[in-house]
Amino acid sequence: MESLTNCDEEEQPSSGMTNSWSKQEAFRGQMPKCAGGFVLVHAGAGYHSESKAKEYKHVCKRACQRAVDQLRAGALAVEAVTAALVELEDSPFTNAGMGSNLNLSGEIECDASIMDGKSLHFGAVGAISGIKNPALVANCLLAEAQKGKLSAGRIPPCFLVGRGARDWAVSHGIPSCPSEKMATKFSLSAYKRNKRKMELAEKMDAGQNQTKKRRQSSENENGSGCLDTVGAVVVDSEGNVAAAVSSGGLAMKHPGRVGQAAHYGCGCWAENACNMNSYSTAVSTSGCGEHLVRTMLARECSAAMQSEDAHQALLEAMQNKFISSPFLATEDRVLGGVIVLRCCRCVEAQASPDIQGAMVEFLWSHTTESMCVGYMSAQDSKAKTHISRLPPGTVPGQSLAIEGGVCRLMGVVD
Amino acid sequence: MESLTNCDEEEQPSSGMTNSWSKQEAFRGQMPKCAGGFVLVHAGAGYHSESKAKEYKHVCKRACQRAVDQLRAGALAVEAVTAALVELEDSPFTNAGMGSNLNLSGEIECDASIMDGKSLHFGAVGAISGIKNPALVANCLLAEAQKGKLSAGRIPPCFLVGRGARDWAVSHGIPSCPSEKMATKFSLSAYKRNKRKMELAEKMDAGQNQTKKRRQSSENENGSGCLDTVGAVVVDSEGNVAAAVSSGGLAMKHPGRVGQAAHYGCGCWAENACNMNSYSTAVSTSGCGEHLVRTMLARECSAAMQSEDAHQALLEAMQNKFISSPFLATEDRVLGGVIVLRCCRCVEAQASPDIQGAMVEFLWSHTTESMCVGYMSAQDSKAKTHISRLPPGTVPGQSLAIEGGVCRLMGVVD
Repeated sequence: MESLTNCDEEEQPSSGMTNSWSKQEAFRGQMPKCAGGFVLVHAGAGYHSESKAKEYKHVCKRACQRAVDQLRAGALAVEAVTAALVELEDSPFTNAGMGSNLNLSGEIECDASIMDGKSLHFGAVGAISGIKNPALVANCLLAEAQKGKLSAGRIPPCFLVGRGARDWAVSHGIPSCPSEKMATKFSLSAYKRNKRKMELAEKMDAGQNQTKKRRQSSENENGSGCLDTVGAVVVDSEGNVAAAVSSGGLAMKHPGRVGQAAHYGCGCWAENACNMNSYSTAVSTSGCGEHLVRTMLARECSAAMQSEDAHQALLEAMQNKFISSPFLATEDRVLGGVIVLRCCRCVEAQASPDIQGAMVEFLWSHTTESMCVGYMSAQDSKAKTHISRLPPGTVPGQSLAIEGGVCRLMGVVD
Repeated sequence: MESLTNCDEEEQPSSGMTNSWSKQEAFRGQMPKCAGGFVLVHAGAGYHSESKAKEYKHVCKRACQRAVDQLRAGALAVEAVTAALVELEDSPFTNAGMGSNLNLSGEIECDASIMDGKSLHFGAVGAISGIKNPALVANCLLAEAQKGKLSAGRIPPCFLVGRGARDWAVSHGIPSCPSEKMATKFSLSAYKRNKRKMELAEKMDAGQNQTKKRRQSSENENGSGCLDTVGAVVVDSEGNVAAAVSSGGLAMKHPGRVGQAAHYGCGCWAENACNMNSYSTAVSTSGCGEHLVRTMLARECSAAMQSEDAHQALLEAMQNKFISSPFLATEDRVLGGVIVLRCCRCVEAQASPDIQGAMVEFLWSHTTESMCVGYMSAQDSKAKTHISRLPPGTVPGQSLAIEGGVCRLMGVVD
């Protein structure tokens, strides 16, 4: 089931944003100038009740604004995407940074990663505790790796986990935060509720054989409301793209479990246009980490975005590489979502040397009940937000929604 | 620089093994019967001195024998590949399990992963301490994930790190091992030597600015002799493939650093033939983890193996997707190696219903100075071993060696 709709939002962007699709020619390897830049964020693919919708939209709006503030100040995509992530992590409503899901031991362990489409560098942290903004650590790892080798020719790490990741972060000036301050009333009460549910399920299963127990329990819901990983994709005024993702992981996960948010190719992907790729692309994923890892969904969606029709390509990628993936053949429900952007030079910019401009196509798609997104260009006065929902009567994990729009970023060369 | 040579070894396999290449037709989706099966292992892409060559060959031989013992007893590929890994990890000469490189804090933290081409499941551990055989934990994670969901519908983890990984292993019956017992005289003395080298380098760099310091130190060698990650690829008698990898990581790495050996798509890859893929393929990688992660080398080599000419496809993958990869554009030396196998039904087996048989093509390629490999079919009485070296005068990290062979596995149907 596919639903391609216009975004029926209370706030319309002030300029340049349309929801119609128009064909643009992508010129191989030509970097588009993006007149200020553009950001698309999400606050998780999962379930967003009407009662909390306002909060999710607010945090998406603030995250867009933070990224655009950076873009307007001339920051690169990788810095703007980090700024958006920090805002999303700081919200107690999202499952990232503050207010993250608690693991089996009642602790918070976070995953985050970031990829820079310009340098193609990647930084990630997994199962990190006591750091309020894991995205800052991922960004710092990326920045340090770009500086070249360490003393005695040692190669700098791109992926750190656990205690070592926290110690590295603190030694690089990122402040630690007591874990108990990162839990919220909501995450603590969800933990207690989940613990009772688990104990009850295990009690009911006691005496049954292991296979039967596993099969039966797979019928229970896995709290699709607890999948609210956050992410963002950005294109800056130079046409560089970046993508980032941050997650507290599945509720009641085993300590030390690392999900897609820290996995290369799975949580986020960004590649500038080059000789081989006509479009610059950036992707961030959300949902059940194990499913997103095994399908390498971020990289698959990025590769699909080199096709001519972005909407059709994402639809096919979500259907063939995710819902019907041979890697998830035994799964009854495949829960996840993506945000995607791609950009190329505008026809107008190609026609005149006085005009710089790009066409940014942006999309989101999810198999979860809902997904909250926000987007904004540097030419807009406000972000636009939207809660996308599966069409009524469709089954989460087996159906998908796909929506998006197009934004022209035009400017006159000084 | 490419060197395709026959293997000049002291021990010739007793049956069915040739070093010549002959064209076989791969029939889409047809699983080959492999009459007992075949294993290819390596003890690291790095530098193997003549003085230690004997030890490396011995451990490869024992690992092949362990896998073949399993195959002859009717085990699946995933069990046979684990058995090979355990033998390779137990050797104090390899950088995996016992005798692993020590990190900056003088501790051993290991990465390992395994992939089953039949179920396409994956299990991995990162930065795990106090476990003698990390490959056993990866295999156990894979096996547990195949059983389906946990209580209350929780999705089982495919990737665990650090303390949580160790606790999970112990709770699943894998014995712990005091870290001090895993260090060897060799690894401890290498640590002391590396520490002195680092201190000296930092002293010399003191007072210089950061950029200059980083550039200068990048000229130093990064101990390509310390890259001896181990791995194995197997095809069983039913034609299922599996791949595994295990590593102590780079010497003097930061605590918590995770390399390619725990990274999906980077350390190992295995896919049975299916509608989309004519060949069953299995790959395991070794070398500088960060380079192997950022190029996703295992998955790239596996995808390349669907081309008609395996040798040419691997050569192009190593050149275009590794040495000249746009993801490593700023690296002056790209150090790594792979072992690869692919198999399809034999022409003879296709002609007669009484004959079951497969053609296994196996290859290794490396940009490091040398790589030690071993291989054996279930029809052989002994494993064959070989230390492959870059041709004289070529530069490690910029040139490559590629070698391999073909093995026919034939049997009469009962």
